[in-house]
Amino acid sequence: RLNDLIEPLHPADIADLLEQIGGQERAELLSLWSREIDGDILSELDESIREEVIAALPPEVLSEAVRELESDDVVDILEDLEEPQQEIILDALEDADRVAVEQAMSYPEYSAGRLMQRETVVAPEHWTVGDAIDFLRSEDWLPDQFYHVILVDPRMKPVGNVTLGRLLSSKREVKLRDIAEESFRTIRATEDEADVAYLFNQYHLISAPVVDGDDRLVGVITIDDAMNVLDEEHEEDILRLAGVGEGSLSDNWFETTKQRFPWLFVNLLTAILASLVIGLFEGSISRIVALAVLMPIVASQGGNAGTQGLTVAVRALATRSLTYSNVGRVIGREIAQGVANGVFFGLIMGAISYIWFGQPMLGVVIGLAMIINLFAAALAGILIPVGLEKLGFDPALSSGAFVTTVTDVVGFFAFLWLATLILL
Amino acid sequence: RLNDLIEPLHPADIADLLEQIGGQERAELLSLWSREIDGDILSELDESIREEVIAALPPEVLSEAVRELESDDVVDILEDLEEPQQEIILDALEDADRVAVEQAMSYPEYSAGRLMQRETVVAPEHWTVGDAIDFLRSEDWLPDQFYHVILVDPRMKPVGNVTLGRLLSSKREVKLRDIAEESFRTIRATEDEADVAYLFNQYHLISAPVVDGDDRLVGVITIDDAMNVLDEEHEEDILRLAGVGEGSLSDNWFETTKQRFPWLFVNLLTAILASLVIGLFEGSISRIVALAVLMPIVASQGGNAGTQGLTVAVRALATRSLTYSNVGRVIGREIAQGVANGVFFGLIMGAISYIWFGQPMLGVVIGLAMIINLFAAALAGILIPVGLEKLGFDPALSSGAFVTTVTDVVGFFAFLWLATLILL
Ligand SMILES: [Mg+2]
Ligand SMILES: [Mg+2]
Ligand SMILES: [Mg+2]
Ligand SMILES: [Mg+2]
Ligand SMILES: [Mg+2]
Ligand SMILES: [Mg+2]
Ligand SMILES: [Mg+2]
Ligand SMILES: [Mg+2]
Ligand SMILES: [Mg+2]
Ligand SMILES: [Mg+2]
Ligand SMILES: [Mg+2]
Ligand SMILES: [Mg+2]
Ligand SMILES: [Mg+2]
Repeated sequence: RLNDLIEPLHPADIADLLEQIGGQERAELLSLWSREIDGDILSELDESIREEVIAALPPEVLSEAVRELESDDVVDILEDLEEPQQEIILDALEDADRVAVEQAMSYPEYSAGRLMQRETVVAPEHWTVGDAIDFLRSEDWLPDQFYHVILVDPRMKPVGNVTLGRLLSSKREVKLRDIAEESFRTIRATEDEADVAYLFNQYHLISAPVVDGDDRLVGVITIDDAMNVLDEEHEEDILRLAGVGEGSLSDNWFETTKQRFPWLFVNLLTAILASLVIGLFEGSISRIVALAVLMPIVASQGGNAGTQGLTVAVRALATRSLTYSNVGRVIGREIAQGVANGVFFGLIMGAISYIWFGQPMLGVVIGLAMIINLFAAALAGILIPVGLEKLGFDPALSSGAFVTTVTDVVGFFAFLWLATLILL
Repeated sequence: RLNDLIEPLHPADIADLLEQIGGQERAELLSLWSREIDGDILSELDESIREEVIAALPPEVLSEAVRELESDDVVDILEDLEEPQQEIILDALEDADRVAVEQAMSYPEYSAGRLMQRETVVAPEHWTVGDAIDFLRSEDWLPDQFYHVILVDPRMKPVGNVTLGRLLSSKREVKLRDIAEESFRTIRATEDEADVAYLFNQYHLISAPVVDGDDRLVGVITIDDAMNVLDEEHEEDILRLAGVGEGSLSDNWFETTKQRFPWLFVNLLTAILASLVIGLFEGSISRIVALAVLMPIVASQGGNAGTQGLTVAVRALATRSLTYSNVGRVIGREIAQGVANGVFFGLIMGAISYIWFGQPMLGVVIGLAMIINLFAAALAGILIPVGLEKLGFDPALSSGAFVTTVTDVVGFFAFLWLATLILL
């Protein structure tokens, strides 16, 4: 009965189901149903529970499951497992597959070499369409999905790609090299996977050959895997911008608490720094309590304006639309925008404060402080992410802490210092 | 000379170049070089400058450019243009193409119908591999890229997909229906493009047939276009979370100022609300200035904790991993996490405050306020995005304002009220 319910589902949906039920229910489901888990389901599972599911599988089910997968999917499963589980899976593979997987694992994590599949469809460049079709018909080990026949020279260096559409629509006697795609690029096995995703997205690649240091073909990357990397890179950026560590929805409260703690701790330090700035002006505050009432507004507007700028910058850096050729212009634009919005909100808030507390000079003070802080926010919002990127740090990870520290410190200081100067 | 420099570049890189230079330089470049602009470059251009570029093209260059494009790319260009420019482009197309484009334009914006290309490769389901190959060899209008032959019944209803790899590796006499892919899904033309991107990503689709209300084939969507939508949806989420409106890096400072203003204005209102809360306790603050020094810490920790939670929730809603089946468990986890981090930071901050100001009860007050605010942050961080989504709003767009309002108001109120109660 369980089988009737789950069987018709796509492996990706079965994986989602396993992810979304609780740990208890998952253990029960697996004990009843583990014999039906196949390789595609394992591939689709989120890393956070994959280990748990694999541990629950009878060994022969696991061997069967990994044997049917392509090498890139085996590598993807393997790289997140502990040593003993890795051994079990490697032992389950046939010799040729194990060598392929071990070679891929020899490339650094998050590299093209880890992402590629070893199963490639190649043809010598002097072949004709007829030769290629006869060859394809005679082979029975072809990958599930492939989109190009890769032309190689005698040293196995890729020299061109023939799309299957061109192959099918050309006469048998046509030479493959005459119908090769016009633009052709190979990817180095050591290239970062984020760069691979960028290349696929930028150049609308469907599959691309991967080469080693000697320019020899070692594998092929397909767009579905590149799309997956793109999705993961986005997830990483959005979560890092919010200061959420690695984590998944199926983590329990204890793991989640540990993941959220570090960023909250960093924020506590920056908040204390801002408080020390306020502490410098205790005397002024005790004489004009309105300062305590109004000061968070200046800091908060700065924090939001800075976050706007840094998010645009982080995204533009990730998509490589912020480059040497336009960074100067974007910095100029951000500053002009900061001053313009500063003047707007300075006037608005100055007027409100004047009406609220009946002191015209208080309005002037908060208006000026607002302009100064939105200017600082604009400057920090663009320079900090660009600077972090240049120094080799991920701007998504740390810009937020720096930028809000700047806007808190500048916001409180400018407002309280101007108030002390002008009102007291 | 200009030509020698630009010619070898990929259209996507030429488009990036046009985007990254300033408006002045762009106008100059276009006046010198506009004859070489082809359809692929127009497709790659960011919407923000496409209109400007199109306006600079000589009419015959524009007609030539759009005529070489597939229907989905023409639609993509067309939908962002003003009426008169749309007319010029439609007039440049051949009759059949114009009808295809106009039909696509009759579907709602951001629907599958807008995303699909009309150029499809179909075969009757009773054909053999040999029939299909002969047909493909005899046609000369085939799309640039296609990945499946779509099997259709006599009413043009799609009934299966044959991958080109299977077609190439099967003998001529094999029936197409016997080598059709196991899992097959069609997409309704009225489906939202974000749902289309989800389907491609979830089910690793490469291309999928699009059908009208009568289940008849009207087009096909390919993965490169779905990947593009996925990328745009991410961009939308990340920018909306930061309160940055639609906008692009090539916008000038004035446009940027206008885009950033609305969210800053909303934030001002919420900041004023928080100030009104502080204003309730002016008396307490004037008697214990330390309250003014410490109160931003409680609000700031709450704001950050709330942002962590809401970002995780927004992302999980976007990827559909937060569903009815696990929302209860995730809410429970967030609350437990909020209490746990609240107790941590309550103890830390209580101790720091005690040491800083030498008043043990001040430490107790800030510790309790911290626990209350991180609890409120956890609750708001999950319930607000989930609630907004349920009400049909985009949680990425507005959760931030609501959540930080909650954490500011609760943070200031809890701290100042407890202080008034306990210390005065
Ligand atoms: Mg999934
Ligand atoms: Mg696969
Ligand atoms: Mg992996
Ligand atoms: Mg793969
Ligand atoms: Mg990465
Ligand atoms: Mg990144
Ligand atoms: Mg804040
Ligand atoms: Mg571009
Ligand atoms: Mg195209
Ligand atoms: Mg569009
Ligand atoms: Mg297309
Ligand atoms: Mg959309
Ligand atoms: Mg969205």
